[in-house]
Amino acid sequence: MRRVYLDHGATTPVHPEVIEAMVACMRDHFGNPSSVHSFGREAKKLLEDARSNVAKLIGARPEEIIFTSGGTEADNLAIFGVARAMRKKGNHIITSAVEHHAVLDACLALKKEGFEITVLPVDEYGMVKIEDLKAALRPETILVTIMHANNEVGTIQPIKEITRIVKEHGAIMHTDAVQTAGKIPVDVNELGVDLLSASSHKIYGPKGVGCLYIRKGTKMFPLTHGGGQERKRRPGTENLPGIVGFGKAAEIMTRDLPEETSRMTKLRNRLIEGFTAIPEVKLNGHPTDRLPINVNVSIRYIEGESLLLMLDMKGIAGSSGSACTSGSLDPSHVLLAMGIPHEIAHGSLRLTLGRDNSEADIDYVLQVVPEIIERLRAMSPLYDRKEAQACTPIK
Amino acid sequence: MRRVYLDHGATTPVHPEVIEAMVACMRDHFGNPSSVHSFGREAKKLLEDARSNVAKLIGARPEEIIFTSGGTEADNLAIFGVARAMRKKGNHIITSAVEHHAVLDACLALKKEGFEITVLPVDEYGMVKIEDLKAALRPETILVTIMHANNEVGTIQPIKEITRIVKEHGAIMHTDAVQTAGKIPVDVNELGVDLLSASSHKIYGPKGVGCLYIRKGTKMFPLTHGGGQERKRRPGTENLPGIVGFGKAAEIMTRDLPEETSRMTKLRNRLIEGFTAIPEVKLNGHPTDRLPINVNVSIRYIEGESLLLMLDMKGIAGSSGSACTSGSLDPSHVLLAMGIPHEIAHGSLRLTLGRDNSEADIDYVLQVVPEIIERLRAMSPLYDRKEAQACTPIK
Ligand SMILES: Cc1ncc(COP(=O)(O)O)c(C=O)c1O
Ligand SMILES: Cc1ncc(COP(=O)(O)O)c(C=O)c1O
Repeated sequence: MRRVYLDHGATTPVHPEVIEAMVACMRDHFGNPSSVHSFGREAKKLLEDARSNVAKLIGARPEEIIFTSGGTEADNLAIFGVARAMRKKGNHIITSAVEHHAVLDACLALKKEGFEITVLPVDEYGMVKIEDLKAALRPETILVTIMHANNEVGTIQPIKEITRIVKEHGAIMHTDAVQTAGKIPVDVNELGVDLLSASSHKIYGPKGVGCLYIRKGTKMFPLTHGGGQERKRRPGTENLPGIVGFGKAAEIMTRDLPEETSRMTKLRNRLIEGFTAIPEVKLNGHPTDRLPINVNVSIRYIEGESLLLMLDMKGIAGSSGSACTSGSLDPSHVLLAMGIPHEIAHGSLRLTLGRDNSEADIDYVLQVVPEIIERLRAMSPLYDRKEAQACTPIK
Repeated sequence: MRRVYLDHGATTPVHPEVIEAMVACMRDHFGNPSSVHSFGREAKKLLEDARSNVAKLIGARPEEIIFTSGGTEADNLAIFGVARAMRKKGNHIITSAVEHHAVLDACLALKKEGFEITVLPVDEYGMVKIEDLKAALRPETILVTIMHANNEVGTIQPIKEITRIVKEHGAIMHTDAVQTAGKIPVDVNELGVDLLSASSHKIYGPKGVGCLYIRKGTKMFPLTHGGGQERKRRPGTENLPGIVGFGKAAEIMTRDLPEETSRMTKLRNRLIEGFTAIPEVKLNGHPTDRLPINVNVSIRYIEGESLLLMLDMKGIAGSSGSACTSGSLDPSHVLLAMGIPHEIAHGSLRLTLGRDNSEADIDYVLQVVPEIIERLRAMSPLYDRKEAQACTPIK
């Protein structure tokens, strides 16, 4: 059976060159980077080469990159790290309603430590409004954390403008760039952010490794304690094979970004056109300020989970919420924040493209999907009444 | 040049079968274990198979294993997790003076959160005394964390006896088994512990992955927040290739442990005999209750760092402190806690054996080392006066 993977927002296949680099690292340079002997020095060199490659991907200096176990840890390190270090200055943090749970839940957990959290609303496209941010900033605001692009609907936030305002106010700016670093151009100096999270497994590197960019001079506490690794900001023996893989993935994506972006954009637009030609299917997220790999649609009168199942039987892998909450049946907090009603949010599908997808994959999806939707709708009790409801516009 | 790696306490070469399993995982099963489609289900299966293998290594049930980014995170998760969850019950924690920094520094960091820490002293062999533990336990003691075997001197603590006392007292017992799980028999039920940390890269698995065993019913908070992975105790997309590698390493070590242990013990004893035959060289750590892979000696009148350098030039890799503090020139806190004077602690050497070592390696080391020691002593100003000092016993 044909298998078409369209869940690159959840994770990506590991690039063959990445696997090769990791194998070479494990086979030939297994030393502990902290050891002073030749085995250690070889490992240390691999570690620092990878750091340079990751730094280059986001326009940072190598010494500003702290390797972590992934995007989730990078987000938590940024948020807990700054909050606990800046507590004397203030106890107010601003975030948005469409953040990944790694950001949202870290912020909410800080309430127990006496912090106040403002969760900014978003517009119908999932975009934070600048006026809302301005109104939320207070003298005691120490940190603003707003994602670069949303993992579910692909909407890209105006981080440069947001950061300018936050910095004028004297607060620290963090952005979760897990869905952008390596997928669209990201430059920490162009954006102006103090902290930026990235993850390897979203850009053809291995799972279990990510990084936090920390602008020089940013005060923060570590989350964990132990050996002095990563400038004492993230102790523990470094995940050398993972980091080497991340470095190689960063190198590849730095090189291939322009070409891949335009190829992805074309495939994405074909998918969007194909889907929105189906009656009562609506695109979620911003029509233009969106990730080149992201398609998210609400398909009225069907359940996203049933659709996923039918697609899976046809070899097509997509998702309905973000992968990490896919076990749950709650509708996506992102779609709800965008004002999409519960029952329509339930019928949403996310397809996310990657390097391995071809025009033929899109042909296959666009051939298979309309039939499936029709079959599912035929079984839906709600669909019987569609004549009556058809005139209610999907918000 | 011959290269002899004798720093397996710092990290180990990755076993070829481990590399193979990781490559197969990355090449053929790259899905996100949280995804519901077939790619995700395949990944989930690999994750759970690895969990079973790791559980088996330490006699646990799979659902009691939480994967982490390594031993350091496992230690921090155990200590912060229990402390913050049990704060209402009490604010007293007991540890020992010879713990790894991942434990010691995590405990000390808790002082800022209002906890009181008792650091138990050790005897001349690095062993905790049961009377000291009994005297330190208070009604408000919530957690005792004492390592299974020491990473520097190899001394194995009487964890079973310690745990019995701690549990009688109603406190939670954690042991850092990073140096034992996979190296000597470890069974969580035999030991009776509630929490146990292990790390993959010490047993021929990849770096950057470890686990915390959490006995069912143990109350603890997570360190980080986000997706619901690892029963909400450790969020973030799982380090699947690393975990698969850890699982394979656990499987191999479960199988090979008895044979490897007796082979290591023989090599170790030859090294100890060879070293202690050199004048004024003394074994550190317990003579019999010690790791089969560990040799640690103090060599009077020389600097450990110079010795390491000379050994490195001969292709021999050893260490003087634990790897993660090897950048620093402070003498080992472990040796100092054992009552070894500063100047002698400075002249210490740790050699740690592994699967790849042969009798021929030991021959080579025992041939090379005495000459080096002689050369270094010949350059030492202190050694000139040795006639005067020789009668002062090395403590
Ligand atoms: C926007 C965003 N932030 C954070 C994360 C978490 O990163 P990781 O999977 O590396 O823990 C993800 C991945 O799902 C994400 O999409
Ligand atoms: C006793 C002990 N605990 C904890 C650790 C830390 O484990 P990891 O290197 O996986 O972070 C080590 C490794 O040096 C160790 O020897």
